[in-house]
Amino acid sequence: MARVVVDVMLKPEILDPQGQAVQRALPRLGFQGISDVRQGKRFELEVDGPVDDAALARIHELAETFLANTVIEDFVVKVEDAEGSEKVAGAAK
Amino acid sequence: MARVVVDVMLKPEILDPQGQAVQRALPRLGFQGISDVRQGKRFELEVDGPVDDAALARIHELAETFLANTVIEDFVVKVEDAEGSEKVAGAAK
Repeated sequence: MARVVVDVMLKPEILDPQGQAVQRALPRLGFQGISDVRQGKRFELEVDGPVDDAALARIHELAETFLANTVIEDFVVKVEDAEGSEKVAGAAK
Repeated sequence: MARVVVDVMLKPEILDPQGQAVQRALPRLGFQGISDVRQGKRFELEVDGPVDDAALARIHELAETFLANTVIEDFVVKVEDAEGSEKVAGAAK
């Protein structure tokens, strides 16, 4: 079983009050040197069968129609390897 | 400026109703072959200066104390490269 990750983030031009709240709190908590924070959603999908181009195309469609609101959000589809590192397989910006 | 990503997910033993709702809706919407979905949070941090071991240690501490609730959540710190792919730099499970 393979894991595909869909990251959904607000588009850069959309205000992100959650991220701003985190970023403003950091210096107060003693963490310097972080100039921007944006917060988004991460979906981990366990895929039955092989993660081939057809499966990735389906997941791209799923992300576009169902997981992300593409008016205000960008999404990236990534394939996770055994170590947990992730490679981009497709994106919509 | 470099980007470090902190992914925060509910621990596997914690029920994830958001992810379940997504997973149950998929067959109805015509998407088969996804056996599990889990939903979590993604934080994108823009770091001033180099992302060296000291910076990553600080971000690990920040994630542990502030971004994740380690009683119920795991987190992973990742460094993003120019193509958007991500390499694991540290994790707390």
